[in-house]
Amino acid sequence: MGSRMNTILQVCFFAISKILPGEEAIEAIRKSIRDTYGRKGEDIVQKNMQAVDETLAHLFEVKVPTELSSTIAMPPPFSLDAPAFERDVLGVMYAGRGDELPVSAFPIDGTFPTGTAKWEKRNLALEIPAWDEKICIQCGKCAMVCPHAVIRMKVYDSKELVGAPATFKSTESRDKEWKGLKYTLQVAPEDCTGCGICVEICPVKNKSEARLKAINMVPQPPLRMPERENWDFFLKLPEHYRRDIKVNTIRQQQIQEPLFEFSGACAGCGETPYLKLMSQLFGDRSVIANATGCSSIYGGNLPTTPWSKNAEGRGPAWSNSLFEDNAEFGLGFRLSIDKQTEFAQELVKRLSAAIGEELATALVTASQKDEAEIYEQRQRVDLLKEKLQGNNSPDARQLLSVADYLVKKSVWIVGGDGWAYDIGYGGLDHVLASGRNVNVLVLDTEVYSNTGGQASKSTPRGAVAKFAAGGKPGCKKDLGLMAMSYGNVYVASVAMGAKDEHTLKAFLEAEAYNGPSLIIAYSHCIAHGINMTTGMSDQKVAVESGQWLLYRYHPERAEQGENPLILDSRTPTRKVKDFMEMETRFKMLTKSSPEHAQQLWREAQQDAESRFRLYEYLAQRKTEKAPV
Amino acid sequence: MGSRMNTILQVCFFAISKILPGEEAIEAIRKSIRDTYGRKGEDIVQKNMQAVDETLAHLFEVKVPTELSSTIAMPPPFSLDAPAFERDVLGVMYAGRGDELPVSAFPIDGTFPTGTAKWEKRNLALEIPAWDEKICIQCGKCAMVCPHAVIRMKVYDSKELVGAPATFKSTESRDKEWKGLKYTLQVAPEDCTGCGICVEICPVKNKSEARLKAINMVPQPPLRMPERENWDFFLKLPEHYRRDIKVNTIRQQQIQEPLFEFSGACAGCGETPYLKLMSQLFGDRSVIANATGCSSIYGGNLPTTPWSKNAEGRGPAWSNSLFEDNAEFGLGFRLSIDKQTEFAQELVKRLSAAIGEELATALVTASQKDEAEIYEQRQRVDLLKEKLQGNNSPDARQLLSVADYLVKKSVWIVGGDGWAYDIGYGGLDHVLASGRNVNVLVLDTEVYSNTGGQASKSTPRGAVAKFAAGGKPGCKKDLGLMAMSYGNVYVASVAMGAKDEHTLKAFLEAEAYNGPSLIIAYSHCIAHGINMTTGMSDQKVAVESGQWLLYRYHPERAEQGENPLILDSRTPTRKVKDFMEMETRFKMLTKSSPEHAQQLWREAQQDAESRFRLYEYLAQRKTEKAPV
Repeated sequence: MGSRMNTILQVCFFAISKILPGEEAIEAIRKSIRDTYGRKGEDIVQKNMQAVDETLAHLFEVKVPTELSSTIAMPPPFSLDAPAFERDVLGVMYAGRGDELPVSAFPIDGTFPTGTAKWEKRNLALEIPAWDEKICIQCGKCAMVCPHAVIRMKVYDSKELVGAPATFKSTESRDKEWKGLKYTLQVAPEDCTGCGICVEICPVKNKSEARLKAINMVPQPPLRMPERENWDFFLKLPEHYRRDIKVNTIRQQQIQEPLFEFSGACAGCGETPYLKLMSQLFGDRSVIANATGCSSIYGGNLPTTPWSKNAEGRGPAWSNSLFEDNAEFGLGFRLSIDKQTEFAQELVKRLSAAIGEELATALVTASQKDEAEIYEQRQRVDLLKEKLQGNNSPDARQLLSVADYLVKKSVWIVGGDGWAYDIGYGGLDHVLASGRNVNVLVLDTEVYSNTGGQASKSTPRGAVAKFAAGGKPGCKKDLGLMAMSYGNVYVASVAMGAKDEHTLKAFLEAEAYNGPSLIIAYSHCIAHGINMTTGMSDQKVAVESGQWLLYRYHPERAEQGENPLILDSRTPTRKVKDFMEMETRFKMLTKSSPEHAQQLWREAQQDAESRFRLYEYLAQRKTEKAPV
Repeated sequence: MGSRMNTILQVCFFAISKILPGEEAIEAIRKSIRDTYGRKGEDIVQKNMQAVDETLAHLFEVKVPTELSSTIAMPPPFSLDAPAFERDVLGVMYAGRGDELPVSAFPIDGTFPTGTAKWEKRNLALEIPAWDEKICIQCGKCAMVCPHAVIRMKVYDSKELVGAPATFKSTESRDKEWKGLKYTLQVAPEDCTGCGICVEICPVKNKSEARLKAINMVPQPPLRMPERENWDFFLKLPEHYRRDIKVNTIRQQQIQEPLFEFSGACAGCGETPYLKLMSQLFGDRSVIANATGCSSIYGGNLPTTPWSKNAEGRGPAWSNSLFEDNAEFGLGFRLSIDKQTEFAQELVKRLSAAIGEELATALVTASQKDEAEIYEQRQRVDLLKEKLQGNNSPDARQLLSVADYLVKKSVWIVGGDGWAYDIGYGGLDHVLASGRNVNVLVLDTEVYSNTGGQASKSTPRGAVAKFAAGGKPGCKKDLGLMAMSYGNVYVASVAMGAKDEHTLKAFLEAEAYNGPSLIIAYSHCIAHGINMTTGMSDQKVAVESGQWLLYRYHPERAEQGENPLILDSRTPTRKVKDFMEMETRFKMLTKSSPEHAQQLWREAQQDAESRFRLYEYLAQRKTEKAPV
């Protein structure tokens, strides 16, 4: 039964309350188990039946003492170290006493501070990962896949270790470019949800004990206090200069600070690793339009948000409008930012005498194509602001108000498949066709996850979902192909669990492309009926069977006379069946309607083969150099 | 200047009114001509300049007599033969006196009668086509392409000619299946707009006089009265039984009565021939959801509508909801009709004893796959209604109210590219993915025609339009490819002027397919800056150059193990340039921005070649038999 307890608690309730005669209630529960789980297979029915029996056998009364005997004080909802607003307003809301707050306690413009979920300290996990620094190869994969941003890496000078807690772990950095620096992999013990994906993904085998890896699950309670102290110490270690990190290799890239901590997404969520990655790469200059869906809930579920800021106060600005207008909402960000940048550049030119010709020219011509150049531009903007101090001309004052727009912003339009394939698709299509520089990230769970598992146009053939109770009869909509047909849209289909470096490359290419980009990211989900710990391996099988393709379509390659499409998937080595058998969303139909399932599974195999051949053709076809 | 008179009237106004000093006003007009038409080329500027001079040279005063001297009476707005509501309500509105009507004059449920545009008798044409029955080969092409349904064909028994007006033309039918019958091609003289497309399309050459064809433009005024009489006589000739017409060949199909007469679309409209064809084939059992756009204006421009009914009172039911919800609106028709059909079938089964087993079974199992079978089903429904007379059971009374739903209805979702590619695309995509039996007809003018020429996502690369004043930089959205990617959508791309039989075949296949169908119909348009008389030849060049593709994607072929896609276009024999040079929308950029035009034209050629190769591949690829 794993962590499921509904059957157990139901039995307890009826056994204790006696609102129905004992045997009658239990029989009704047994019947309901058959009705509810029958189509999921006899195995699951039997586990529930056994849970009924075991519950009855182990039920005993807990006497409630007449007076309090505990000496443990309840901690405040948020740490006393939290800033005043977080502690006195958000903390009160978090404790469920928001109705006690006066209206005057709230921000008058409706904006809320970011980086507030970190005060929750939910302490959900029974087990958390522990790092074995002796055998760790420092590949960064565990940090990459962590859905909750609770595994962090830092490299730093050994002198920073002065005053480290006794149990704080540190070792030599193995990266030759960081020779002589120290390396620490640190877990946030109170924020970890215990999903175990990090351990599952760790490629290291402990030679002395085969069941162990370089990171292993261990009970949380004994570690809570010491690791809390280690975590706080870790946070105070300096961040490595962003401009010195090679972002195209995970082992270096993963030391970038995540600006997405710690979401309330399900333990093991398949969506959040993509968002965390985006926040690491571009978060300090990003603006995010978020469609309604899981990501709008864990992204901004009052009173807190996991979207955070770094030590300089930079981080994503985030908002959610409606389900149906998110692409347009994000396009509006782009248009507005571009207009303000243009205005700032005009003012710089107009004030060039006061600013100095050299600085003025550099400010408006900076290409800002990588972190180093963005750093330089930020320095220039700081200098500009200094020079404008005391200049009370209207132009100078206006320039001060828009000077930050001289640093390149990264616009992200984020949502699930319910948004991108269905409800918001009309707008998405229009925004992609607009040619404007926006980055669209589709967290594709192939089903309406947040609203309870309804089929979307992304749901694959044969999957059981609401509105597709007999298995989805049609094939999955090929959103990527549709977008590619425009020719000027960067399109990538990724699955982090199948090829993490490919995901990283796609994010970098998408953001760098000066036009619309679409990343369709396979996201495993509790709605699939899977063990979330192995979600990343499921993704691997999805790709190996051809059920999910990896590809990147880059319009700039066409401009060079190359084929814009690179099919990054290899010819499938497994059958789609191998994938479908791993997931209850498919498997349940083989119980409830075996013949129909067989037909749909056959068709699903053909879908995959036919689609692979089509993409193979598209990736191989000759293209002429475009006449630029 | 053709029929254009804005420059002429402007000169008259300023010359007469003298609100500006004479020379100053004329100079301002000359400047405005340069500003307005400059980018259309020097030729057009010069024509306008000449118009200014000629107007001034020919301006003379017309003395208004102090009293009326005419003996000609103004005819009433609508014929006195029109039904009372049409004559007394719609006619009054048509005359611009609608505000004199009391609210009580209007239908309480908001429905309006159809077939009312025929009372307008606009008498627009200076010339109308005259039929040369001696050389006509009776191919039906002139009737097929007529945008205004004013050229009609009938075959009938010679005894029907008793009482024919003296100038009524009739000849022997040349179709061997109609041996012995008479044939007439009749023009509606007062409804014709004089566009001349019929003459342009006529394939017959008059051997005795090379400039003549089997149909020729002649002055209208002398023909108005005699042809009006002929037209009225023609209308009274009986319609051929629909069930006896071979609908897959134009020469027979075109005797089907159009239920779309006479729209106020532009003379030579490229959209209306498709609607007229649809009304002939399926109009007597169709329900139409019409998106906002030209077709919603000429389709239901109060007080009249060209949508009509036949002698049995059957014709399209038509409505327009919003720009953005038309696909959903039409899907609603489908769902509602299906539910009522299902309900009627249930009632038939329940009442089978009273109805008679044989009739009841036939009613619910009839396949109604062609006109003959639909005729039989209608007979059965008539019989059913007779049997239910006097039966006052609730079931019988309910069945009477839904009995007509036992006859198959044809749901059409109609709109332009502004709707289908842009504003309504999200809904269209969803409806196509639904798998329901709806027929979508996109009248693709590649621009927002009705709202004044804004670029849509259908606008081809290089075309000048509002919001694309420098020539559309991106390629046309491939709506058909996007729809085909679902696999279960019938998709056809047609151009009547390029291959009329292909258009006919596509309409028949689309309607017969028990699933979603999408017909994308190339529609020439005044917005293209063309001579509308040769609009159909433009379509031909569009196809011959590969600028427009002809194809049909039929999901049923995949079920038979065949490739679902048939590319009906041949390898282009001309260059896209040949097409672009024919249309001002492209040509104007070569004047205003020659280098940019050159680049876009080159890219447009590559678009066409690359797209043709892709479709060729898709049409040739191997497919396996689907596992049904």
